[in-house]
Amino acid sequence: MGLKAHGGDIYSYINENSGKPIDFSASINPLGLPKGVKKVLKSSVNQFAAYPDVNCTKLKKALSEYENINPDCISLGNGAADIIFHLVYALKPQKALLLAPTFSEYELALKNVDCMINYHALFPENNFMVKEDLLSKIEGMDILFICNPNNPTGMVTDIELLKRIAEKSKETGCLLVIDECFVDFMENSLRYSFKSFLNEYENIIILKAFTKIFAMAGLRLGYCLSSNKELLKRINTANQPWSVSVPAQLAGVEALKDQNYISKTLKNTTKERHYLTNQLQKMSICVFESYSNFILFRINEGIDLYSELYKKGIIIRKCENFKGLDSGYYRIAIKNHADNTKFIHAIKEILK
Amino acid sequence: MGLKAHGGDIYSYINENSGKPIDFSASINPLGLPKGVKKVLKSSVNQFAAYPDVNCTKLKKALSEYENINPDCISLGNGAADIIFHLVYALKPQKALLLAPTFSEYELALKNVDCMINYHALFPENNFMVKEDLLSKIEGMDILFICNPNNPTGMVTDIELLKRIAEKSKETGCLLVIDECFVDFMENSLRYSFKSFLNEYENIIILKAFTKIFAMAGLRLGYCLSSNKELLKRINTANQPWSVSVPAQLAGVEALKDQNYISKTLKNTTKERHYLTNQLQKMSICVFESYSNFILFRINEGIDLYSELYKKGIIIRKCENFKGLDSGYYRIAIKNHADNTKFIHAIKEILK
Repeated sequence: MGLKAHGGDIYSYINENSGKPIDFSASINPLGLPKGVKKVLKSSVNQFAAYPDVNCTKLKKALSEYENINPDCISLGNGAADIIFHLVYALKPQKALLLAPTFSEYELALKNVDCMINYHALFPENNFMVKEDLLSKIEGMDILFICNPNNPTGMVTDIELLKRIAEKSKETGCLLVIDECFVDFMENSLRYSFKSFLNEYENIIILKAFTKIFAMAGLRLGYCLSSNKELLKRINTANQPWSVSVPAQLAGVEALKDQNYISKTLKNTTKERHYLTNQLQKMSICVFESYSNFILFRINEGIDLYSELYKKGIIIRKCENFKGLDSGYYRIAIKNHADNTKFIHAIKEILK
Repeated sequence: MGLKAHGGDIYSYINENSGKPIDFSASINPLGLPKGVKKVLKSSVNQFAAYPDVNCTKLKKALSEYENINPDCISLGNGAADIIFHLVYALKPQKALLLAPTFSEYELALKNVDCMINYHALFPENNFMVKEDLLSKIEGMDILFICNPNNPTGMVTDIELLKRIAEKSKETGCLLVIDECFVDFMENSLRYSFKSFLNEYENIIILKAFTKIFAMAGLRLGYCLSSNKELLKRINTANQPWSVSVPAQLAGVEALKDQNYISKTLKNTTKERHYLTNQLQKMSICVFESYSNFILFRINEGIDLYSELYKKGIIIRKCENFKGLDSGYYRIAIKNHADNTKFIHAIKEILK
């Protein structure tokens, strides 16, 4: 129990203060829940009494069309984190390779099965990009997680290199988990997603979630894609049958209908990433190139930026608990222009 | 994937037929979601965008008052099944003792950690009651699950015997999991719940859920109680941090406020259990004594009662996949009088 170090903990702030903070610590789409989702949830509360459909039949059908993939190649969970944990429980890998820094839940899940973890360090001088030297570390590994774009860096892995990583993993019997939870924030996501190559690999799982792109973090809805149906079955067996709630299933079906929402999202992300990056760079802050809806930056000053912004009602993500980063690193979500302006104004005041 | 054999699968019926069935297969409170819960869910959809509170602070506080237990002794999950699975992943028991018949998720969770399972058979001639002979089977076990009242039988374990089981488990280093998900359907639940003895035992966990008593199966909200805080911490570590959704947390807090709902529930359960039992007995059906909101019965006729009722738009729970039961056994939920009357009418037609 006790607070775990994550983004998105607005509740401690609300407990300690009056009013809500502006939350830059969780990288959630600032557009909020799609209107149709709000509407369907309000009108369907009577359906929440019954058990959820264990097969998620309607949602799988909708996702199948949205992702252009066979419904049998989809499995759903109570957020992507739920899938990460049960994938690990299903396979009980003994040796894992993780990027450093990367999303911390891979490590937390792996520790539950006493997995030995090797870390592949990424370096700020390369914008934390995954390079060829990863290839030589795959042999002997049971599992490799690549978050793409990577959290918390925002950097994307070159698709040609990713294919070589996939091939090497296939040759050496390593399961490759590509976490594409942020890929849909990219204008040209199809060029970076590994989705279209899934049929060639039985050793690959792609993770995705409604959490960030559809601003549904509170509803908990994630999924994974794989051509290996036996593997998906094992992940399902490792979890309770009713992991995906009725509201999450209804919300998921509705969200996928709203194509306008995605185009608005992309427009806001690209424009505001440009704005935030420029403004931070003007203050001589070291900003790392991002392909996602968040930005990693580093300040050298001896300033506790987190606490200073917290006092002004703004929460950002301290990154010192990411392996490979130190207390100078912070991650911020890309929010709407009004909030982003407030953030820039606040940080200017602090650093002046 | 594919349909798992459970109660509450109204979705396959809806897929195959026009209209909704009357569902007697899942033992959910027929009063439906408390009104206050519906109201709060409708008015709080904007809060579903943010991550849930990982500490479930408000809900723990409310539960602490409701259960009269320290908030540190409570841990929450995505339904009680979520807790069962992560309790098993946290402890990795190698030898388990289960009642037969009992709720099937214990076995399914245990199989994921390759646990050897011993079964303690319960017999129809004793109304499937747990007897003293269980005591001699505890030694050498890592974990023992007692569902109380037991699903699918409805039978309750004598509290004095339960204390002896607890003592024996403590002496032999066995974790005793008492599943009290149905205890709140009993008029005199405090006399049967093990809650008030929790402080004396570090080796006991009580499981409970909002699922059935507050008709929230679709929202997914369960919890466990234990005086062993280290154990609760291990269960939490074995799970993702955001397992309990925002709507589930909000609904839980609201549900606990509605004391009138519980008294109405008890009144309906007792009255309608009496009605259903009497009516079935009048048809010379063998009905087992129930202390819960469902009834187990057995018919000897060579009739596929499930299919006959299904044709009439009524779903009941076939019990042949419960260890120790055969195809003559069925479980029905206690619903409201209108639905119960329809059920009795339908079964009369079939058996006449």
